[in-house]
Amino acid sequence: MTSSAPASDSPVLAAARRAREAAAALAPLPRTVRDRALLAIADALEARAAEVVEANAADVARARAAGTSETVIDRLTLTRERVAAIASDVRDVVALPDPVGEVVRGSTLPNGLELRQVRVPLGVVGIIYEGRPNVTVDAAALCLKSGNAALLRGSSSAYASNEALVGVLRDAVAGAGLPADAVQLVPGESRESVHELMRARGLVDVLIPRGGASLIRTVVTESTVPVIETGTGNCHVYVDELADLDMAVELLVNSKAQRPGVCNAAETVLVHAGVADRFLPLALAALTAAGVTVHGDEAWQKAGAGAGVRVEPATDVDWETEYLSYDIAAAVVPDLDAAVAHIRRWTSGHTEAIVTRDTAAARRFVSLMDSAAVMVNASTRFTDGARFGFGAEIGISTQKLHARGPMGLPELTTTRYVITGEGHTVE
Amino acid sequence: MTSSAPASDSPVLAAARRAREAAAALAPLPRTVRDRALLAIADALEARAAEVVEANAADVARARAAGTSETVIDRLTLTRERVAAIASDVRDVVALPDPVGEVVRGSTLPNGLELRQVRVPLGVVGIIYEGRPNVTVDAAALCLKSGNAALLRGSSSAYASNEALVGVLRDAVAGAGLPADAVQLVPGESRESVHELMRARGLVDVLIPRGGASLIRTVVTESTVPVIETGTGNCHVYVDELADLDMAVELLVNSKAQRPGVCNAAETVLVHAGVADRFLPLALAALTAAGVTVHGDEAWQKAGAGAGVRVEPATDVDWETEYLSYDIAAAVVPDLDAAVAHIRRWTSGHTEAIVTRDTAAARRFVSLMDSAAVMVNASTRFTDGARFGFGAEIGISTQKLHARGPMGLPELTTTRYVITGEGHTVE
Repeated sequence: MTSSAPASDSPVLAAARRAREAAAALAPLPRTVRDRALLAIADALEARAAEVVEANAADVARARAAGTSETVIDRLTLTRERVAAIASDVRDVVALPDPVGEVVRGSTLPNGLELRQVRVPLGVVGIIYEGRPNVTVDAAALCLKSGNAALLRGSSSAYASNEALVGVLRDAVAGAGLPADAVQLVPGESRESVHELMRARGLVDVLIPRGGASLIRTVVTESTVPVIETGTGNCHVYVDELADLDMAVELLVNSKAQRPGVCNAAETVLVHAGVADRFLPLALAALTAAGVTVHGDEAWQKAGAGAGVRVEPATDVDWETEYLSYDIAAAVVPDLDAAVAHIRRWTSGHTEAIVTRDTAAARRFVSLMDSAAVMVNASTRFTDGARFGFGAEIGISTQKLHARGPMGLPELTTTRYVITGEGHTVE
Repeated sequence: MTSSAPASDSPVLAAARRAREAAAALAPLPRTVRDRALLAIADALEARAAEVVEANAADVARARAAGTSETVIDRLTLTRERVAAIASDVRDVVALPDPVGEVVRGSTLPNGLELRQVRVPLGVVGIIYEGRPNVTVDAAALCLKSGNAALLRGSSSAYASNEALVGVLRDAVAGAGLPADAVQLVPGESRESVHELMRARGLVDVLIPRGGASLIRTVVTESTVPVIETGTGNCHVYVDELADLDMAVELLVNSKAQRPGVCNAAETVLVHAGVADRFLPLALAALTAAGVTVHGDEAWQKAGAGAGVRVEPATDVDWETEYLSYDIAAAVVPDLDAAVAHIRRWTSGHTEAIVTRDTAAARRFVSLMDSAAVMVNASTRFTDGARFGFGAEIGISTQKLHARGPMGLPELTTTRYVITGEGHTVE
């Protein structure tokens, strides 16, 4: 934590240092003060929506001129209505329970010392994300609610929008009596600014990359700042020998096709050999009707031929691919343990589901999985902070340390031991 | 987690891969099976103490021939009594509560889905440590108790001892029906084996370096495997204006001199200017009597001159040094906030103490610290898993993610969400 300010500080490091100062000022503030700042943010977003929308229009025009796809442009675009919705989301964050100050455990030791493990803010949270400007406000709001300073590094494609939004946020935060540097946009649009952020160990307490697999891989392998890995989801649905087959078809289609572009969508279905003859034709019909292309092993290809449905031959590439599209890999396995072995070999550790009426099979499957979430007779799509009832989500962690699965406000904190005595010494 | 076995696996990676297989086998085992293996280890250590002591004698002879200091040789040495004590420690671990399977939180969602967050083992835990062979058994026992496979990389100076100990452990584990590869010594005595371990991302779930600051710095900056940083303790004692000065002297001497070579010993004392005139002579007398050399600012030097005690002039090097010896840095500060600023600037984030009778000062000090533990009127030396009542300790984390402060068995686990429904789909 030794952090003297060298004269050679780059703009990114200087911003990180200011964030660290702001975090020190935020840490002791009670909830009411932080909530007041969040409400000021919501009000300011509504009052200054016009300037945000105008700045955004410049980003959108640039993106359009560069031939960006309409899907991406839609994610980038802010309207007055969308800004109002973002402000409303901030008000929802205000209403969430305060994670800071929670006593996680506590006891009075035999010698009379009072021991408390208390939740405290992490400090400076760096977030690296792609071209959705709403994330700028969501992430800042969750950081402030949990007492952290936010260092935001959005996509350069949304730089004008993010500058306008962060300007509004900083004014509101300062107006509420908090340091404006509690919310900062990482200066610069170049890749180099991301690299500097990754090397700001001792100034930035954690980096959360949100976005594509290659961004996340880069941050995880190159950062000296601790990282929370998010997002990649090569999720599996296993249909057991004792599955209710109608339920299995419904869960499979929902897991794959309800919204295929998200990390909790299913990418592979595995079917117990004992029900393959009955299940594969049902599944092929339903998946085809939902517009899904199946990439299957020999059993699925044969079933496809029987049903008059084209099944693409699957290779190892299919087992490891997160399609994020109307595609699914499919195999028949001899038994539950073979399904487990397949999943452990290929999963990204996000979410796996079993469909079964057999309590022993469900129990065994759950105990052998090494993933953040395991569904028993439920869609993989449920792995989500909002659906879990957390009220907010900063991302879905696929790592094991610190946070695993959907991350709410408590995952943006650490703890501190506070020990109170009256002159206690050790012997 | 994609981990096919390339033909080119080095011995270290091959060991990591076997550990991963063993971890998969360990994960679903209930407590009784794991406890049985631990009891078998304790019995085997006693039964085979002679061969352990013999192997250790070779290490000790080598160390002595190399001119190793007697302190280090003492840490390295195993006797029959010491092996019996290690076996007894293993039996203590058996008696600890099982962290695996604990439901951390749970609820029934509005749609009827049952949500449970359950503690599960991390998987493969790598531990890098120095020349104390008892750590080999302690670490293996804590890993097994928490359902993890242990990859142990001790000092090359204890290689023969560790090989003998791990041989005993593996036989006992296998005899109890668990995979022997749940406990492995990392093959090879070279530095390269540490580097390979640090690059085994996807096979090793966490690395815990225990030892000197330079080892820990290397692992933290070079490892692609997630690391839990342990140990460095530049701990502070702040004597407030409203301190009970007799209590302050006693706490200061206990914090510094009760055992100066450990991470929770105090390294700097800061004194409020309002009590400096009265406190410094008392402290100098007591510290001198305890054999402690003071490295002080001008006020301390002046007080030293008045008391006839030599006070070395302190520089920035003293503020940042973890002496681990009978030395302490000392300064007078104008007020509590100046003490806070000094500590935040120089601390390693381990433990800080305030001595005060003023509730407001205690509250402000606690809220402004950014360290793993804060003591109010208690010795810094209390930051310790055993003293906290955790029953066992794998290390003391000075980082914020995952674990902070003394790490017991729960810190060797992660969690998994288990969601149970009856065909639930998202809309």
